[in-house]
Amino acid sequence: MKNDNACKMLNLYGVCRFLKKNNDYLILTHASPDGDTLGASFALGLALKKYGKRVNVVCPDEIPKKFRFFTDKFSGDKHSDKTVVTVDVADMKLLGEAKEKYEGKVNLNIDHHISNSHYAQNLYLEPGASAASECVYAIVKKLKIEIDKDIASALFTGITTDTGSFKYSNVSARTHRIVADLYTYGIDAAGISKKMFDTKSKSCFELEKMAIDNAEFHFDSRCMLLTVTLDMLKKTGCKDEDLEGIAVISRTVEGVLAGVSVKQKGENLYKVSIRTYDPLDASVICKRLGGGGHKNAAACVINGTLDEVKEKVLSEIKIALEENNAGTFAS
Amino acid sequence: MKNDNACKMLNLYGVCRFLKKNNDYLILTHASPDGDTLGASFALGLALKKYGKRVNVVCPDEIPKKFRFFTDKFSGDKHSDKTVVTVDVADMKLLGEAKEKYEGKVNLNIDHHISNSHYAQNLYLEPGASAASECVYAIVKKLKIEIDKDIASALFTGITTDTGSFKYSNVSARTHRIVADLYTYGIDAAGISKKMFDTKSKSCFELEKMAIDNAEFHFDSRCMLLTVTLDMLKKTGCKDEDLEGIAVISRTVEGVLAGVSVKQKGENLYKVSIRTYDPLDASVICKRLGGGGHKNAAACVINGTLDEVKEKVLSEIKIALEENNAGTFAS
Repeated sequence: MKNDNACKMLNLYGVCRFLKKNNDYLILTHASPDGDTLGASFALGLALKKYGKRVNVVCPDEIPKKFRFFTDKFSGDKHSDKTVVTVDVADMKLLGEAKEKYEGKVNLNIDHHISNSHYAQNLYLEPGASAASECVYAIVKKLKIEIDKDIASALFTGITTDTGSFKYSNVSARTHRIVADLYTYGIDAAGISKKMFDTKSKSCFELEKMAIDNAEFHFDSRCMLLTVTLDMLKKTGCKDEDLEGIAVISRTVEGVLAGVSVKQKGENLYKVSIRTYDPLDASVICKRLGGGGHKNAAACVINGTLDEVKEKVLSEIKIALEENNAGTFAS
Repeated sequence: MKNDNACKMLNLYGVCRFLKKNNDYLILTHASPDGDTLGASFALGLALKKYGKRVNVVCPDEIPKKFRFFTDKFSGDKHSDKTVVTVDVADMKLLGEAKEKYEGKVNLNIDHHISNSHYAQNLYLEPGASAASECVYAIVKKLKIEIDKDIASALFTGITTDTGSFKYSNVSARTHRIVADLYTYGIDAAGISKKMFDTKSKSCFELEKMAIDNAEFHFDSRCMLLTVTLDMLKKTGCKDEDLEGIAVISRTVEGVLAGVSVKQKGENLYKVSIRTYDPLDASVICKRLGGGGHKNAAACVINGTLDEVKEKVLSEIKIALEENNAGTFAS
């Protein structure tokens, strides 16, 4: 729920004044961390330390291995928590288990999601930015903090992961201008890109093979559905963080408007990720199923057996396809 | 063979003077056309027409459907062939069937391959450019020809395809600066990216599924080998142009230094594409097998049964792994 009365919107000048004024920062990423929340948070952390501030960065969940090449570069100051800053966190609930502890205590939120719920005392929101890392880049430049290779690597990771390596519609001329500048600090952009997009473990390859083998097409192939069970994870030794590729597969087949990946979380518990193309709106479909997200990527959690979960999801997708005149289908 | 005596190297100023001076251009792309040879050639064609020249653009092979959104924007002038310009063509043999007709008759070659064989009378070579489209961008800017959406779309396609959507090590700060500028002409970059990278036909998906099911790992999983037979193509209805994804799969599994895709071309004829990571050199391996290419991507054509072909390739890869101290393997 938006609560604008309590939330002060800051512009670039305002957020910089805020960061200058305070001295003792706790920066929080969102739970289930991705490249952008980590890239933007740690880049801000590294930059504020260079600016003479005390800073700690905390991620509510374990940081996946592939991001440690830059997160390990940061060493936090202990007991630094006077000013709480969330980065790339559109809503308090995205803090996961850290939500309760920081409810009502977030002093500044730096974000780029138009859906931001305005929960912080101060908000620097750039809905036009492809990534929170773009916002942090702007702040660091405005504060005239010298960018170095570590800061640039973190920001590049954030931007490239949130844009699918510059393929999504959130990319702008400004995104490329920022990245051109980041290249000048000697980052290993190709190495980072390979790590983020073109490296899958052999066990992950085996998992994807299984998922592809059981791929289902529905509604004249306008919907593709992939399933990952706990049994498949056990057999291949994959972790949750290896599952990103599955959602990507579900949206690359021509003609597919809704790519669905159903991932088992417990005996009768499934997380459903939906990627859509126009005219379908993934956030509308997921909202009806108790979840939410963006227009082209959203998710929800559903209780039930695998068959029940699939049926629930497919019936909502059928409705969405019909509502959007993307085809009428016999049940 | 390099023949520098007959080949005049031009700088940016020189190539622009050349293009100003002549009036009647035939622009040639290489055979088996990719996004860059088409993007750069058609962008140059569109630009020179705007500059008041007579121009035709010819591709020795059929233009794959996915590039027609910009190649169809160009209408060539008939009988325009006084000055022959090749774009992104590092060697005459890459003209395929058009080679004989234009042997010794290429007036200007615009290219970015360090391996360029200096076959043209004049050569504008930028080995530091990620794509020939970067070279054409520089030329068009220098000639002060106004870039429009069609030219920008063609150049963006060239750059994004030759860089794997900005993931390869050939990308520089300049690449991103150029692309930032191209965005300002209203290109549908996300749409082009989806078309180039994230759209596969359902039949292509079925083909990849088959190839993945039969994937082989060799030498402690340092080599991954995928096979596509004519039978698989027939069963799925895939064309040669659908096979790009196969080579990509073979290079994404962690620990794999050599990704091999073996594609059947005739009863006892196979095209072998090899993608490598340091320290392996794909061009060295393929040269020994009668082919050639770049350090990280090369190819060769081998006669024999599938088993014979695999054996030949694997024994060369074994040697390469051992020579590079990337492991010793019992035979």
